[in-house]
Amino acid sequence: MQPFVPRAKLWLESEGRLVMSDYRLRLLQLIGESGSLAAAAAAMGLSYRRAWGKIKELEANLGYPLVRSEVGGAGGGHTALTPEGQALLAAYARFRDRVEAAVRQAFDDELGSLTRGPSPSA
Amino acid sequence: MQPFVPRAKLWLESEGRLVMSDYRLRLLQLIGESGSLAAAAAAMGLSYRRAWGKIKELEANLGYPLVRSEVGGAGGGHTALTPEGQALLAAYARFRDRVEAAVRQAFDDELGSLTRGPSPSA
Repeated sequence: MQPFVPRAKLWLESEGRLVMSDYRLRLLQLIGESGSLAAAAAAMGLSYRRAWGKIKELEANLGYPLVRSEVGGAGGGHTALTPEGQALLAAYARFRDRVEAAVRQAFDDELGSLTRGPSPSA
Repeated sequence: MQPFVPRAKLWLESEGRLVMSDYRLRLLQLIGESGSLAAAAAAMGLSYRRAWGKIKELEANLGYPLVRSEVGGAGGGHTALTPEGQALLAAYARFRDRVEAAVRQAFDDELGSLTRGPSPSA
């Protein structure tokens, strides 16, 4: 019997609609790092259209933009996080990190002794 | 803009296979309270067969039984949690409660100031 592994999926809703998730945090962080929605989408195995749709859905639910695109120019298009997007991402990342630490601690404390199945019969 | 609400889904895996989840905890707690798999399944809107399948899947992945059924008798069938099942459920419930408390605290600390969207322009 292998040990147990705790898993957690986190997200935020507003009026029942998704406004941030672990997955979308990663997508937006990649945009911030690369300056490119195409590169971020490719890194996550998403089509450009699908990645764009995920971000536009969040923006519609949030009521403000997360990214700002500059089309064309010498180096081609560029996508950057808005200040509001940066603030939300930073706060959500701190939230996520704290919950993940709590998951590990609570798991170790409460389930660590039960991870190897029942004791063999004496 | 309504405030944000944090959401979390938790589960345990062993070798990539599900061994407990919030949903299955609830199903098993209802069995423990009612002594009846049929009643627990009905309370969760599941067919008896589907509820039974969920429990048998967990038992196969865990390597030990979670419930014990006594068929027939004066009062009809009865399903009870095994001691190992009771111990796992109690430990998982403590784990879940601690993580939920941490989710609320981390959300209040990190995202409480961002729940109402951007400030209106001055």
